[in-house]
Amino acid sequence: MSSLRSSSDSLAALGEAGLLRVLTGKWKPNRARVITGAGDDCAVLRGEGKNHFLVFKTDAVSEDVHFTPQAPPGWIGHKALARALSDLAAMGAIPLAAVITLGVPANESVRRLRAIYRGLERTAKRYGVDLVGGETIRARQLFLNVALLGECRGYRPVLRSGARPGDSIFVTGKLGGAQVRHHLTFKPRLVEGKWLARNGLASAMMDLSDGLGADLPRLMAASGFEAQLDLAAIPRRPGATVKAAFEDGEDYELLFTTRPFHVKTLKKGWPFGVSLRCIGIISHCRVKSEHFAFAHGFDHFKQR
Amino acid sequence: MSSLRSSSDSLAALGEAGLLRVLTGKWKPNRARVITGAGDDCAVLRGEGKNHFLVFKTDAVSEDVHFTPQAPPGWIGHKALARALSDLAAMGAIPLAAVITLGVPANESVRRLRAIYRGLERTAKRYGVDLVGGETIRARQLFLNVALLGECRGYRPVLRSGARPGDSIFVTGKLGGAQVRHHLTFKPRLVEGKWLARNGLASAMMDLSDGLGADLPRLMAASGFEAQLDLAAIPRRPGATVKAAFEDGEDYELLFTTRPFHVKTLKKGWPFGVSLRCIGIISHCRVKSEHFAFAHGFDHFKQR
Repeated sequence: MSSLRSSSDSLAALGEAGLLRVLTGKWKPNRARVITGAGDDCAVLRGEGKNHFLVFKTDAVSEDVHFTPQAPPGWIGHKALARALSDLAAMGAIPLAAVITLGVPANESVRRLRAIYRGLERTAKRYGVDLVGGETIRARQLFLNVALLGECRGYRPVLRSGARPGDSIFVTGKLGGAQVRHHLTFKPRLVEGKWLARNGLASAMMDLSDGLGADLPRLMAASGFEAQLDLAAIPRRPGATVKAAFEDGEDYELLFTTRPFHVKTLKKGWPFGVSLRCIGIISHCRVKSEHFAFAHGFDHFKQR
Repeated sequence: MSSLRSSSDSLAALGEAGLLRVLTGKWKPNRARVITGAGDDCAVLRGEGKNHFLVFKTDAVSEDVHFTPQAPPGWIGHKALARALSDLAAMGAIPLAAVITLGVPANESVRRLRAIYRGLERTAKRYGVDLVGGETIRARQLFLNVALLGECRGYRPVLRSGARPGDSIFVTGKLGGAQVRHHLTFKPRLVEGKWLARNGLASAMMDLSDGLGADLPRLMAASGFEAQLDLAAIPRRPGATVKAAFEDGEDYELLFTTRPFHVKTLKKGWPFGVSLRCIGIISHCRVKSEHFAFAHGFDHFKQR
């Protein structure tokens, strides 16, 4: 009896999403202050006045999970901050300030830590983030936690929940095969996300971190409608198969939906170097919970 | 040659404060936006209007460093959040929202994690914190990182740097011997900190987390003046020696200074159950850098 119980209750059975649901599913933040809490790319709090919003995010990377011991240290620092920036980009927010927690094994090289921080600083400078504090703790494994504060001023952040039947589904850039180098060196789509949000051209948005196959169902679940995907239309990084473009994680591109009457404006007005591709449409079918069986992307805890 | 170099450059030689100095010492945040960055209890950002400030903090606890495997899980959750709240208290700020990163070993019990989160939720409710998001990552060691956003509205946060010669040095509560149980169950001094800040009665303030012997020198270094301490006046928890009250960490009491002409108002007006004790005075001597030799509290990396 207890073996059945403990097996269905184990981390491997729950997976990352299941664990988060168990732990945070009942959180009901104060609606007067909080626009959206756990479950979107970032939390959104009301700021001062009608069109000011604070955006708040925590994200960690750890050795042997998000980077190998051989990864260039500067890129580790870049990745730690850029992942959180990518989540802000997915709301259309701009970053303000970050605080860093560094977990350090006792035998870690100070020179390597310094190089990691120089990478962090370069990325912070590039994207206008003030590094305003942090702490170090002893840990068995090197990790960096980035807590990031941002804002939307004069426009509303884009949530995952705004997709409606008939909306077109777009992605930026190319997907798949990111594990080679891209996952350490990617550029967070901050200007693209802000442009979409300011111009009201995205009805729902998120960033692709666990793979299209895992992330799209989350956007659909948040919005409540299914998607019809044109697999052949998924833009692929050189050498990536359709399967890889669908299942590989760490693309850090934007996945968003656009109302039918905005599609022309979007395509014509898109001012960026990065490509833009329509990969499907939101259907009229309501999402059923079994839909999660569709997920295939990266999971920290699931056994495969 | 390289052995000398690497030894003076090792974590053990640097210690926690030294490592933070190496990593963050050159951070120069944008003064238009940031009032204080790395080096105080929290970062302080300008909010909207003249008397609104955002306060931002990250803090992590990990197994075998901040709690043992035997610690009641609810208390682990409490401690993770209460430590960050104690840092907000030390600025006189009130908490708004928190996001949590959970690092989980693959064989961790889901039941234990749930109990940790119930403790976190109880403490969040008690102190008016909205839990608005988080994530879980695989890790070799259980850890919780709390990123906390708070504010001061209508008054200025109290920094570590405001102590001046002649100011009296106060502590709340009793010190020493916290490792028995207090370090898991302490109450962050939020109402006391806010009262001191709102009423302009603290010229400098911090919370005691690494022990008076380690923390007081930090306040002195930030303010630029030395302290004359009356060791016999240090309030001690039952059973604690003067040495323990001076050196033990994890008191989570407030350490603050008060201008001479405010001392009477402070003592007469103090409306709280927790005790208040004057333990010394800020001297006219400027802090010299060797002063750090005086530090005796807990350090994550120093060999002893």
